Amino acid sequence: MQANGDRNGLRRHRERLEALGIQLPMPPIPLGNYVETSLVGTLLFTSGILPFVDGKLLFTGRLGADLTVEQGQEATRSAALNALAAAGHFLGDVDRLQKVVRVGIALATTEAFTQHAAVADGASDLFAQLFEKEQGHTRLVVGASSLPVRSPVVLDAVFEVVV
Amino acid sequence: MQANGDRNGLRRHRERLEALGIQLPMPPIPLGNYVETSLVGTLLFTSGILPFVDGKLLFTGRLGADLTVEQGQEATRSAALNALAAAGHFLGDVDRLQKVVRVGIALATTEAFTQHAAVADGASDLFAQLFEKEQGHTRLVVGASSLPVRSPVVLDAVFEVVV
Amino acid sequence: MQANGDRNGLRRHRERLEALGIQLPMPPIPLGNYVETSLVGTLLFTSGILPFVDGKLLFTGRLGADLTVEQGQEATRSAALNALAAAGHFLGDVDRLQKVVRVGIALATTEAFTQHAAVADGASDLFAQLFEKEQGHTRLVVGASSLPVRSPVVLDAVFEVVV
Repeated sequence: MQANGDRNGLRRHRERLEALGIQLPMPPIPLGNYVETSLVGTLLFTSGILPFVDGKLLFTGRLGADLTVEQGQEATRSAALNALAAAGHFLGDVDRLQKVVRVGIALATTEAFTQHAAVADGASDLFAQLFEKEQGHTRLVVGASSLPVRSPVVLDAVFEVVV
Repeated sequence: MQANGDRNGLRRHRERLEALGIQLPMPPIPLGNYVETSLVGTLLFTSGILPFVDGKLLFTGRLGADLTVEQGQEATRSAALNALAAAGHFLGDVDRLQKVVRVGIALATTEAFTQHAAVADGASDLFAQLFEKEQGHTRLVVGASSLPVRSPVVLDAVFEVVV
Repeated sequence: MQANGDRNGLRRHRERLEALGIQLPMPPIPLGNYVETSLVGTLLFTSGILPFVDGKLLFTGRLGADLTVEQGQEATRSAALNALAAAGHFLGDVDRLQKVVRVGIALATTEAFTQHAAVADGASDLFAQLFEKEQGHTRLVVGASSLPVRSPVVLDAVFEVVV
């Protein structure tokens, strides 16, 4: 329904990325025996995505000890871009993403860390720039005792896609 | 299918809340650039919901150090009520909730804490009072190194809704 | 569509389990007021599943302190088998499982632990042996400050099922 309206809306992702001067990175590579995306019906699930840039982690360590809030925001934004890249690679076109349904963010933190929301907005602000405001995403943010390969951030997403 | 049967079943949520003397709180307010609920098909996802009561966290701190199991149960029950409030606010009517599919509960804990199941039952017992027994929910409970704004609990839910 | 092809593909789960000499365990028993599986549409969600074998946890403690990576792999593999057992019990036949959509793995770890991917492959390798390669699953692995009843692992899954 409203295929034209949807198409117009969708076409904006790529245009907006270009307008923001953002080039999607290469899609991430799994660290084990799994895949980065799985489609079921109109839902596209991603694996836990790390802030790799050109094959290297943007940062390592924990929020509250080794990284500032600003660095954490850069890391969640990078993981969000990698999630978009994984989804776009699977779908053949990032414009087939209709909506960000849910974003899960685990942050490696000290026990005393409290600024999860600010750090997670690094990812949420990016999604908000690309997707319609009325299609805001849900979000879960928790502190982890440790994360794979000392990453400060792991992000997983559920997208609604045009099939 | 069985629209009448469903309607009768559904109407019970509000009646049961009244019978239990429970008034749903105001829906929670996001801490960042996200929304509290997202609908895709018949699935309604919530964000991570905190035990806010009248704009204040019911408790802060960690299970195993700062809170008793009973206080933890109060906190998970409060977060569950806030999740119902968020869902009811979005849907316009809490009776459109068909089923609790999945509840995720992260508890801020010490390393030695082991009573996750008892604490999480604060939320599960509430859902069991409101929803049909044959519609029991799945649940994931984990210990977190830290949670947003020092909350002892974050709860996220997936509901099936009548569309 | 392709019902015969699907059926043939599906029938392989049981055959492969037999070929691997694997007998599914008894389905796990909830630790609280929830159920182990919940079906919505074609999605079957499981609760957080522990590595219980004959009613006892295979291991207790934390990765990085009390367990080796190999023991962690045994634990995630055991939890994966229990998740398959829960799903098969609910569906009446494990062959109704079409695809593993998503696996979530929380590991109780020290702060310094980094080998999450290797430990999680204990579960992923099992799923890869049973399901078609082109149906690889997405995966999220995080470190937890603590887990229920001192389990080193909690695994939850989303399966696509034939309805």
